Amino acid sequence: MKIPFINTTEIRVRYGETDQMGYCYYGNYAQYFEVGRVEALRSLGMSYKALEEQGVMLPVSEFSVKYLSPAFYDDLLTVKTEITAIKGARIYFTYELSNEKGNIISKAETTLVFVDKTTMRPTQAPVNFTALFESI
Amino acid sequence: MKIPFINTTEIRVRYGETDQMGYCYYGNYAQYFEVGRVEALRSLGMSYKALEEQGVMLPVSEFSVKYLSPAFYDDLLTVKTEITAIKGARIYFTYELSNEKGNIISKAETTLVFVDKTTMRPTQAPVNFTALFESI
Amino acid sequence: MKIPFINTTEIRVRYGETDQMGYCYYGNYAQYFEVGRVEALRSLGMSYKALEEQGVMLPVSEFSVKYLSPAFYDDLLTVKTEITAIKGARIYFTYELSNEKGNIISKAETTLVFVDKTTMRPTQAPVNFTALFESI
Amino acid sequence: MKIPFINTTEIRVRYGETDQMGYCYYGNYAQYFEVGRVEALRSLGMSYKALEEQGVMLPVSEFSVKYLSPAFYDDLLTVKTEITAIKGARIYFTYELSNEKGNIISKAETTLVFVDKTTMRPTQAPVNFTALFESI
Repeated sequence: MKIPFINTTEIRVRYGETDQMGYCYYGNYAQYFEVGRVEALRSLGMSYKALEEQGVMLPVSEFSVKYLSPAFYDDLLTVKTEITAIKGARIYFTYELSNEKGNIISKAETTLVFVDKTTMRPTQAPVNFTALFESI
Repeated sequence: MKIPFINTTEIRVRYGETDQMGYCYYGNYAQYFEVGRVEALRSLGMSYKALEEQGVMLPVSEFSVKYLSPAFYDDLLTVKTEITAIKGARIYFTYELSNEKGNIISKAETTLVFVDKTTMRPTQAPVNFTALFESI
Repeated sequence: MKIPFINTTEIRVRYGETDQMGYCYYGNYAQYFEVGRVEALRSLGMSYKALEEQGVMLPVSEFSVKYLSPAFYDDLLTVKTEITAIKGARIYFTYELSNEKGNIISKAETTLVFVDKTTMRPTQAPVNFTALFESI
Repeated sequence: MKIPFINTTEIRVRYGETDQMGYCYYGNYAQYFEVGRVEALRSLGMSYKALEEQGVMLPVSEFSVKYLSPAFYDDLLTVKTEITAIKGARIYFTYELSNEKGNIISKAETTLVFVDKTTMRPTQAPVNFTALFESI
């Protein structure tokens, strides 16, 4: 894989994700970006689930998001996810969320940290994970 | 404790819990009832957190709810939780949710099952748990 | 449409929908069933979004669910949704949730009520809605 | 009110807010900060609900958060909310989230925009809102 690696996936806004403004609630975007990065990893043959089963967790340490226009109920959104860097125990993603008209409605960034489940300390990305990134 | 045991606790409807009808989304009540039963147990000196740390989980096996009138943003709701029975591996709760006008807006019931974390099989309630229920 | 009408749709369990037991949290199933009924209506050419824009809301008045086995992170679930009846202002759905092994892990029922947005009173299903149901 | 204005409120982590890492899911913090700013406004005699009823919405336009240490199930968290500035159509908040040991576990910032419900355009904060801020 050449960094940056870009993947897109679609998500439809659920009724329960709207709020009384009629917007998708700002707190629900975090789930959309999570789906974006999980699907980006899956498209590389990586399973976040398998990563955890190997004893490595990947909590978010930083998250920032700009809400440019609202998302509405039943909108079919496109999440464009980019893996921008892997450095030591950290992996960096950026996201662009677009609606069906093709308008970018949100941009976001996250930093995640590889954490060893046993020691609960930051750890290097597992070998099969980094190997995959290097080999592609 | 005499069965039935009744406890009340208050919950304020969050903005993110509303939907575009302007109602508290029907799926969010499950969290309110969870808070109701956790606080009912806490009022008896029982910690659901400690229960899990002892190796016993308490997943919900049945849940039914009637929505009599809507709950709205910022409503301060009262959850009245009743422990109606403990039989073998099961514990039964009922709930009444009222708004600030004193109107009952929802009624619900749940069945939960004590599950051993190691075997992942249903198990009797832990001794300190049942003892407490019998002694009070 | 012949009643009962059955539709299936798929939903993948998100990380944020799990709880610390490692199960999909019991309160999140309500969203899955909502997706099930929205997609069932969509497959009939009905848009829940358009229904609301016509001035009719469809809140849930009753919901009951049995949790037969847990759903886990990243499981690709199938929601089988059945519209079992439309009577006056009410529409009835049942749901079966299955995992990738084909095991039914949950069964549920909901009753929803057509409500006029202006009067906030129960109302007959809109003509284009019932007509569609009768004509198919 | 002198800017900055600081308010604190408490929130207990719900079971449904944890994820399978056993952490409070990173997406749920947005709700905690929302509660923080709503309670900060309430402590000033301002109701976010009333603001909306006056025809002004207050969507979030930017949100950034650092997760310093995890929050766990049943933790009683303290949200310290600071209103740092009001400029034109924008209001700025910062947040610190602490656990029961007094450790700061998260820091965050949000920008919100006053939006006129009729025109759906950014608008100055309502007079009674700014007057209150100036008079205190």
